[in-house]
Amino acid sequence: MSSMSEIRQDPTTREWVIIAPERAKRPQHISKRTLAHDLPAWDESCPFCPGNESQTPDEVLRLPSSAQVSAWEVRVVPNRFAALNISGNLERIEDGRLFRKMDGVGINEVIIETPSHNTTMALMAYEQVEKVLIAYQHRYNALKQNRQFKFITIFKNHGCASGTSLVHPHSQLVATPIAATHYRRRLDVAVDYYDDIGKCLYCDLIAEELREKARVIAETREFIVLHPYASRVSYETWIIPKAHYASFGLFPQVHLSKLAIILKDTLLCLYHGLNNPAFNYMFDTSTTEDEDDPHYHWHIRIVPRLTTIAGFEMGSGMYINTVMPEDAARFMREVRASLVKEGTLSSE
Amino acid sequence: MSSMSEIRQDPTTREWVIIAPERAKRPQHISKRTLAHDLPAWDESCPFCPGNESQTPDEVLRLPSSAQVSAWEVRVVPNRFAALNISGNLERIEDGRLFRKMDGVGINEVIIETPSHNTTMALMAYEQVEKVLIAYQHRYNALKQNRQFKFITIFKNHGCASGTSLVHPHSQLVATPIAATHYRRRLDVAVDYYDDIGKCLYCDLIAEELREKARVIAETREFIVLHPYASRVSYETWIIPKAHYASFGLFPQVHLSKLAIILKDTLLCLYHGLNNPAFNYMFDTSTTEDEDDPHYHWHIRIVPRLTTIAGFEMGSGMYINTVMPEDAARFMREVRASLVKEGTLSSE
Repeated sequence: MSSMSEIRQDPTTREWVIIAPERAKRPQHISKRTLAHDLPAWDESCPFCPGNESQTPDEVLRLPSSAQVSAWEVRVVPNRFAALNISGNLERIEDGRLFRKMDGVGINEVIIETPSHNTTMALMAYEQVEKVLIAYQHRYNALKQNRQFKFITIFKNHGCASGTSLVHPHSQLVATPIAATHYRRRLDVAVDYYDDIGKCLYCDLIAEELREKARVIAETREFIVLHPYASRVSYETWIIPKAHYASFGLFPQVHLSKLAIILKDTLLCLYHGLNNPAFNYMFDTSTTEDEDDPHYHWHIRIVPRLTTIAGFEMGSGMYINTVMPEDAARFMREVRASLVKEGTLSSE
Repeated sequence: MSSMSEIRQDPTTREWVIIAPERAKRPQHISKRTLAHDLPAWDESCPFCPGNESQTPDEVLRLPSSAQVSAWEVRVVPNRFAALNISGNLERIEDGRLFRKMDGVGINEVIIETPSHNTTMALMAYEQVEKVLIAYQHRYNALKQNRQFKFITIFKNHGCASGTSLVHPHSQLVATPIAATHYRRRLDVAVDYYDDIGKCLYCDLIAEELREKARVIAETREFIVLHPYASRVSYETWIIPKAHYASFGLFPQVHLSKLAIILKDTLLCLYHGLNNPAFNYMFDTSTTEDEDDPHYHWHIRIVPRLTTIAGFEMGSGMYINTVMPEDAARFMREVRASLVKEGTLSSE
């Protein structure tokens, strides 16, 4: 309909995305969702609320570790409805002439991020977010000792459209004996780039985005926040650490306090700018065997769930994004500036 | 939680899927959705209803072609909200040092499947479904003459959770200058198989599924209907033609009447068995340049939208399916048998 429509290639996957801004709703037309504070602070039927600890399996981590059960700040517990079993046989079994299977071995843990039922990471204190990140990394590094597990996915589902069923702030960790296909694809592209150019694709991406500025929402000494060039959905947001580590597991713990600030601030901008949207975030990290790999560079990917994937995306693998990443970044920078101005957000 | 959980590999993509049946809802617990007949037969505000033809762009195909505007049975019109433009420059443009883009060139057409507002393909006459398929193939073969277009995706979004916004029965066709990444992946796997074994992977898959029988829902002289071994979602269903053609465009038109029967019957089983679920279907076909390729084998993939993709799937690329394909097939064969018994469905 308009000459503004473009097809852009993501340099980290080589996949193409249709950017068709004339289809967009303006952010201010996005309908209001229930804000976290509309909920009660404590819900007696919520298995993650204080006092209901017996409704979850025994915890594998509590912060602070010295806390009484009643005074925890973060808990990590096995998922009661885990799709995978802790033990089993990893041998591939040929199932007829064409098929192959293995036992459903894996770990699925839930990180209960706070005792408070009616908050969300965007509204938490920086120190609380830091504790969540410490819990992520602690469990990641504990589970990678089990060499059965090749890949550990840390992710968060927030809001109904994200696929979550519980509102109490929580995230999850899944360790699988299979490497993520998404990671393999990104690694292949990054290795090709490294072989061609002799540098890390993501380090070069950071430099290029900082030079162009158009898609950058925030920059700190340690991190860059941006809407990627070929954002697959509106307001897709990446947080990339400037320090080069393939794995979140090796990311220095001393940096987690800074990561907490940028993560909370980024989620707060999305919360205010898009009226508490449903979203998922994923820690895109290497396999546990590739943690020292020079080619890959871990980062966080935040995917707002403002639209539904439909038959075109499922058939072609191409996404249609209705907001130009540069327009999204301009809007998000304004949101950020107004939050800094009113003192809601640090101005680092 | 249970020893029944498995991780299965899809032989057509080599991707792994977690099958964790203990999480399943029984089909009878799936909530009732609005059935098509609850809607009015004609809606004055619907742009696809008869009498409102002026609300769509000029049609590119009408069936029967001799019909008066007021007496059409199937119409194909450009999508008024197309994300792509018919003309533009296909040259890749280097956008800074790392990025690449091109004009958003493509075609997006809507196939209005019937004048009736309150039906769905599962409930249509076989002859009407055949007309829709004829329209698909007619437009596919017309658009492939334009060598700019490398891939043509035919798909249907049915029900709110599928990403559609209009209830009037319709499907879509999108022609893009980029080959689908999903197709490239499947082709790579099929070529490897062909090189190793010397035969078409999909022809062998049909033979193996017919030998094992456990995942087969229906077989006719021309088609097999099954839940694939590594179904990514519950009740994922494939319709595979026994005749080997890489492209739907080359599938003999004389077979479309048989395809109409098996497609409608399959959708009717899903409609009754799962209470009119939201679903997408996609015609998984070759690129327009590969239509004579000996390795690929087009088929239809139906994906019910009973659950929401969440952070684990987005982070790892692995899906969690809560229904064993063999259990799904047993259930669907029962549904089919009872529909045959009551005479609702042909017993071919």
